Amino acid sequence: VSHPLVSRVLSGDTRAVARVCRAVDDRLPGYRDLLRELHPHTGRAWILGVTGSPGAGKSTLTDQLLGHLRASHERVAVIAVDPTSPFSGGAVLGDRIRMQRHFEDPGVFIRSVATRGALGGLSRSVSDLARVFDAWGAGVVLIETVGVGQDELDVTRAAHTTLVVVAPGLGDDVQAIKAGILEVADVFAVNKADRPGAEAAVRDLENMLALGALSLAQVSPPASHAVSGRHARRPGGGGAEPREGWTPPVQKTVGTTGEGVVQLVESLEAHRVWVESTEMGQDVRRSRAHAQLVAMLKDAVTESMLSRLGDPIREMADRVEARQEDPYTACERLIERFRT
Amino acid sequence: VSHPLVSRVLSGDTRAVARVCRAVDDRLPGYRDLLRELHPHTGRAWILGVTGSPGAGKSTLTDQLLGHLRASHERVAVIAVDPTSPFSGGAVLGDRIRMQRHFEDPGVFIRSVATRGALGGLSRSVSDLARVFDAWGAGVVLIETVGVGQDELDVTRAAHTTLVVVAPGLGDDVQAIKAGILEVADVFAVNKADRPGAEAAVRDLENMLALGALSLAQVSPPASHAVSGRHARRPGGGGAEPREGWTPPVQKTVGTTGEGVVQLVESLEAHRVWVESTEMGQDVRRSRAHAQLVAMLKDAVTESMLSRLGDPIREMADRVEARQEDPYTACERLIERFRT
Repeated sequence: VSHPLVSRVLSGDTRAVARVCRAVDDRLPGYRDLLRELHPHTGRAWILGVTGSPGAGKSTLTDQLLGHLRASHERVAVIAVDPTSPFSGGAVLGDRIRMQRHFEDPGVFIRSVATRGALGGLSRSVSDLARVFDAWGAGVVLIETVGVGQDELDVTRAAHTTLVVVAPGLGDDVQAIKAGILEVADVFAVNKADRPGAEAAVRDLENMLALGALSLAQVSPPASHAVSGRHARRPGGGGAEPREGWTPPVQKTVGTTGEGVVQLVESLEAHRVWVESTEMGQDVRRSRAHAQLVAMLKDAVTESMLSRLGDPIREMADRVEARQEDPYTACERLIERFRT
Repeated sequence: VSHPLVSRVLSGDTRAVARVCRAVDDRLPGYRDLLRELHPHTGRAWILGVTGSPGAGKSTLTDQLLGHLRASHERVAVIAVDPTSPFSGGAVLGDRIRMQRHFEDPGVFIRSVATRGALGGLSRSVSDLARVFDAWGAGVVLIETVGVGQDELDVTRAAHTTLVVVAPGLGDDVQAIKAGILEVADVFAVNKADRPGAEAAVRDLENMLALGALSLAQVSPPASHAVSGRHARRPGGGGAEPREGWTPPVQKTVGTTGEGVVQLVESLEAHRVWVESTEMGQDVRRSRAHAQLVAMLKDAVTESMLSRLGDPIREMADRVEARQEDPYTACERLIERFRT
């Protein structure tokens, strides 16, 4: 017998969705059972990650995307992880007013997620919420996050398609991108493209992508199903005809006016089609699903260890601090103890 | 019999330090044994975290701190996790030139750390490096990181004292701080204090701290040894004499000229004394050591699961993606399997 909230969510009841979200956020008793029951009804939503540094105009662009996507989907959900996003509450007045129209639209569900405490779990919370919205019938789930930390990278891995937003003049951005975001970027937007330096930013990104494609083609074996497997862009190297690989397109946009947003949506849709219709795209999806399960497993096993071995872990931490035990041996012993 | 590199590190040989760092970074065979042997010789260094958003002038301020701290310590080490920091290589030319003097000083060791791949492990790498520098004889280990992700928060927890740098005019900063950094801030610097809005930023922070102290005093029991335990700032509430609690001071600085840096160093030193000489300070240190061990354990247990259950995890991920299994049950089953 299924929980009454489950059938209400499946019938599109937004108040039931809000209640399940609260249960997930606060990890209320029984929330896992709710998610278990919803899970078979998921898998239809397109999970679209939007990431980039604060200052790139990510929120304004997300707002534009939301408008466009809502026009072609009955239901769209937004999960805001970025503390500087107006969706998540870090808004200046103008942003808030602009958002209003979405808050009043029953076909749009917006949920913000706070960074978790010491134990992490951000990526799990986000996956959980995405599943709830998927079951509710969202055609698209937008996940907006600051692309800096590892935890945020994990969140991005939950997406089928990831948009990375940069802005000209933020020279740091390209550096930050190198540090890990390139790995998850499927489409780039050079936002604020009416500012000086937009062309240079596009060129920088394209050069970086060309270098990346080169090194991947030279170094990697056809990375089918690897943990952090990234699709090779032109496997086979020189001479062969173009294959089914994906090269992230770079699209110029102006979030404040909406310029370039139609083309951006087309690029994102093209990636979706690539994922769904090519073998290589399916491999990418599988390897991300794997990475996502590993991220969840990481939280789950740590939680399990803490609940079983709370006191021994505290005692061990004291012993490490007193230099009676080194932390590597301490971890090994605790894991050994957990396993027996 | 100890490894020859160990005695060389202990005697202050910087080339041996560099070799051990490389072994740690690349997780070369035997690196854990090196760390095990070094561990009993650690515990003397003061681990000083410096965090804040890009644009707050964190790197320039770190450079100033490094200069001051080097004057009173024979050896100082810097671990740069921030991809936008000149220490870690994301430098514009001016920054690089300024850094030169430190790169040529044999009493300064600078090491940058990249964000890790899918499995995280950033906080462990940083703790490992900090231990190496501690054993080398560093009086201070500065850890510079962008204060956004969970992983970066974990890194900050490895510090004995954490400085959070903000700048006036970056309105987002205060929002970002609320999202988790407040929890780890021991001292605040309002940098670029020659710009308009510095006084307002100081006031905002002080108000936020006053609110935080109030709610902590009202809500929390004396949180001795809790996982994410935060020292109450004025326990006991109104009427009682000032106790041994710590209220993070807010110091105005101008990184480019060095204004306020002497006072900032004094505030940081005062926190160090507080940690070392008060019972409450010792509680904070213990709870951070605990959080740090948990972060290491999280990586270690996940690694152990992946090496033992690589194929079953991949199969389970496929089953989850095919909706034959929900991810919560999948995690439970994998943990159960790991434990038997």
